[in-house]
Amino acid sequence: MSSNTESWQAKAQRKRDQILQGIPEQWRLSRADLDRAALQSDLTGSFIQSFLDQETIEITSLETNEINPCLHELFIEYALDRAKELDAFFEKHGKPTGALHGLPISLKDQFHVGDFDTTMAYVGWIDGKLGIDKEKSPVFESDLVKELRSLGAVFYCKTALPQTVLVGFPYGHLNGRSQGLTFISLLAWRNNQQHHWRLELVFRSVLSTKPWLSDPAVVPIPWRTEELESIRSRVNAKGQSAGRPLKFGFFWRNSTLEPHPPVRRGLKIVAEALQRAGHIIVDWNPPDHKVAEHIHAQFLYADGAHDVQAHISRSGEPIIPNLKSRFGLREPMPLLQYQDLTMQGLDFENRYADYWNSTGTEDGHAVDAFIMAPAPHAAVIPGKYLTPGYTEVINLLNYSAVALPVTRADKALDVVDTDYIPSEGLDKRNWDAYEPDIYHGAPVGVQVVARKFEEEKALAIAEVVQAAIRAAQT
Amino acid sequence: MSSNTESWQAKAQRKRDQILQGIPEQWRLSRADLDRAALQSDLTGSFIQSFLDQETIEITSLETNEINPCLHELFIEYALDRAKELDAFFEKHGKPTGALHGLPISLKDQFHVGDFDTTMAYVGWIDGKLGIDKEKSPVFESDLVKELRSLGAVFYCKTALPQTVLVGFPYGHLNGRSQGLTFISLLAWRNNQQHHWRLELVFRSVLSTKPWLSDPAVVPIPWRTEELESIRSRVNAKGQSAGRPLKFGFFWRNSTLEPHPPVRRGLKIVAEALQRAGHIIVDWNPPDHKVAEHIHAQFLYADGAHDVQAHISRSGEPIIPNLKSRFGLREPMPLLQYQDLTMQGLDFENRYADYWNSTGTEDGHAVDAFIMAPAPHAAVIPGKYLTPGYTEVINLLNYSAVALPVTRADKALDVVDTDYIPSEGLDKRNWDAYEPDIYHGAPVGVQVVARKFEEEKALAIAEVVQAAIRAAQT
Repeated sequence: MSSNTESWQAKAQRKRDQILQGIPEQWRLSRADLDRAALQSDLTGSFIQSFLDQETIEITSLETNEINPCLHELFIEYALDRAKELDAFFEKHGKPTGALHGLPISLKDQFHVGDFDTTMAYVGWIDGKLGIDKEKSPVFESDLVKELRSLGAVFYCKTALPQTVLVGFPYGHLNGRSQGLTFISLLAWRNNQQHHWRLELVFRSVLSTKPWLSDPAVVPIPWRTEELESIRSRVNAKGQSAGRPLKFGFFWRNSTLEPHPPVRRGLKIVAEALQRAGHIIVDWNPPDHKVAEHIHAQFLYADGAHDVQAHISRSGEPIIPNLKSRFGLREPMPLLQYQDLTMQGLDFENRYADYWNSTGTEDGHAVDAFIMAPAPHAAVIPGKYLTPGYTEVINLLNYSAVALPVTRADKALDVVDTDYIPSEGLDKRNWDAYEPDIYHGAPVGVQVVARKFEEEKALAIAEVVQAAIRAAQT
Repeated sequence: MSSNTESWQAKAQRKRDQILQGIPEQWRLSRADLDRAALQSDLTGSFIQSFLDQETIEITSLETNEINPCLHELFIEYALDRAKELDAFFEKHGKPTGALHGLPISLKDQFHVGDFDTTMAYVGWIDGKLGIDKEKSPVFESDLVKELRSLGAVFYCKTALPQTVLVGFPYGHLNGRSQGLTFISLLAWRNNQQHHWRLELVFRSVLSTKPWLSDPAVVPIPWRTEELESIRSRVNAKGQSAGRPLKFGFFWRNSTLEPHPPVRRGLKIVAEALQRAGHIIVDWNPPDHKVAEHIHAQFLYADGAHDVQAHISRSGEPIIPNLKSRFGLREPMPLLQYQDLTMQGLDFENRYADYWNSTGTEDGHAVDAFIMAPAPHAAVIPGKYLTPGYTEVINLLNYSAVALPVTRADKALDVVDTDYIPSEGLDKRNWDAYEPDIYHGAPVGVQVVARKFEEEKALAIAEVVQAAIRAAQT
């Protein structure tokens, strides 16, 4: 089926056709509905629900290739066969196979599942498994896939990624732009409490398989229920302080980019809700995040784009326009400079830890977590994603972060602020990109950030934040 | 006192004088005793005990600069002042300051203590603190130092290191060759059971201070008593199996270097003792350690010796002869090659983990630990240290290892084996270096190796091994 002389365009088209074929006929939308969909600024809510019963919304994703190319693989038959296997197991043994028995789980297209492709959005890896010799290992699987399966998970699709995984929405030559991530995040939005429980279940179950024994890169820290409990024991069901209050740092903006009005309002909603719930709010003035962003970016580009170029040259596809200027092939960074960069990163980590510890100087209690926007704008409009600046500091620090929804942009409340004079460059481009009508209804979130290896704490605190927001709204 | 025009020889001599001055007059040996010392092949045992009472042996080290330059700093006054402080605290509060109240602890000269020098054997860092601007931070201290002090430790010296810390005995221009490490290890030898308890106490206490909060490079794994207990519950006081037996891999030699006869015998003693105690012994046939040694060495030399050269050029001292050929200044490795090397290291780790897991295929129980020699020879004769090959695989894998003493070389038992034909090169050089008369009485040890982050398990298993050896000898 594949051929060395096949153009990258033809190869990508073949894959798109294959993905579409994976969607059962009866699940596809009619031409008329597709046209109607193209006119929506928000495909979720009433529009999509007009096609579905409640249960279906929660179990499957429903988009067709034309309106929402959020998938790189869809394998319903494979999933149904697996579900039958699990049913048979339950019938025979009278018990589930594991903690995730029958749970449908989607993985992004970086994970190796069965004999399906792993493309990571590179056309050159269609009919292949990125980095793996598929001839030799047709069913090579990622450790996480094996662990989830051993717990009873059912895989049914692989979700889309952008080329290089370095822009804020899936965009590559496999499927063009996708609004998939927005939709998926909205599922979480609809039922966030349940989402937290699911996250906890999956984390706890996967860690119960001791993944560090098969993958030495995994640190052997089991799921620490006591870390969750130590937070939960300090609040009631409404997130109100019921003991020593939680202490939050609030990072209102970074030094380069002013958040759009809906994001400012979102942060204020959270701060007020937490204060009303009896928690402590302090301003968060850490070492300049710009330094982290600079170090992080240098790491990304250190290899002179040799890795990315090797992947795209397999098919001859070009770099997507958003990344073209950054991923031209060039000399890699000299090693001594790279080692110095590593030291700069460690130094930033140390200074950040010192700052964090210093917040406990007065009362003996350092902040439990800090709150910041995940981006300077509400849910991204495809093509308007300018910078990962609000997230890459977290990447560099390896901190534990949980993003959660707060409100939606509202053109009546979030009017253009003419008092703010943006700096020339990125700040101005971002500031000018805010248009109340376009953003109206877009989700606004915050991220709860705990230290490195504090996933349980971050999750428990995110629950508290959400409960407090909910309580403040009622 | 220091001057930019001072020669490195003069600077080193000044430091040696200073170290000597730190030793109280009444503790120094006479000229006659020093001459007698120079004739001994073993300074421990009856020779040194002729000068000391039992208690003194355990509390202080006693060498003078001339016979045993094992120290870079000795600060008895500082230690006594600290001890008085601790006494006063105890008097006032009726309780110790922490779990290590009053415990004298020596640190190697890589740690920053008070306003003392940190030279790491570089003459250029005399009157300085390696890598730290001493003008700005005269009392900059390492995190570990602060943590140990907060627990009540008393610092009294800093032990010698070789230039670059990459040869097997302290050898640099600060103090020439040292036999110090041999003597220190013998203290442990004399009373190894107590040594294990001390290690456990120090680890547990230091981890109780949550060092990961101040140093993000520390992984937040507390001391896991349950890991020790899970081993201890499987044996009795003689190290005999009292439940599911322990399972040991035995690594008899690596692919390049045959161990000397005393080391071979040491391994056999351990294997027989463990079998007699009811444990399971299997051969250990992992991925070739030579691969790990090669990767490890490339990492060491990747920077083209720029780091080492920067340190020695501060004073103009030369590289010590043992390292000269390896640390000439040259072009650093290109970054892509370095990144590939990192991948090779991860691949080796993965393959090693796969092998380890495979030892459980038949009976469901992978080996608990494996046993290997720490070197292909007994305790090293200064100048005869040829290769770190038996240890650097452990460094690359980040495995948890505990070295422990087994026996002593014995010229009557460990005769030259003329049947073994060494390979040309390192194997032959090592093999030819074995002389029964010279090695007679030298300590022979093994190392107990557990996986990454399994320090507690390694320590508990080392106790079992030692108990089994002792039981077999009586």
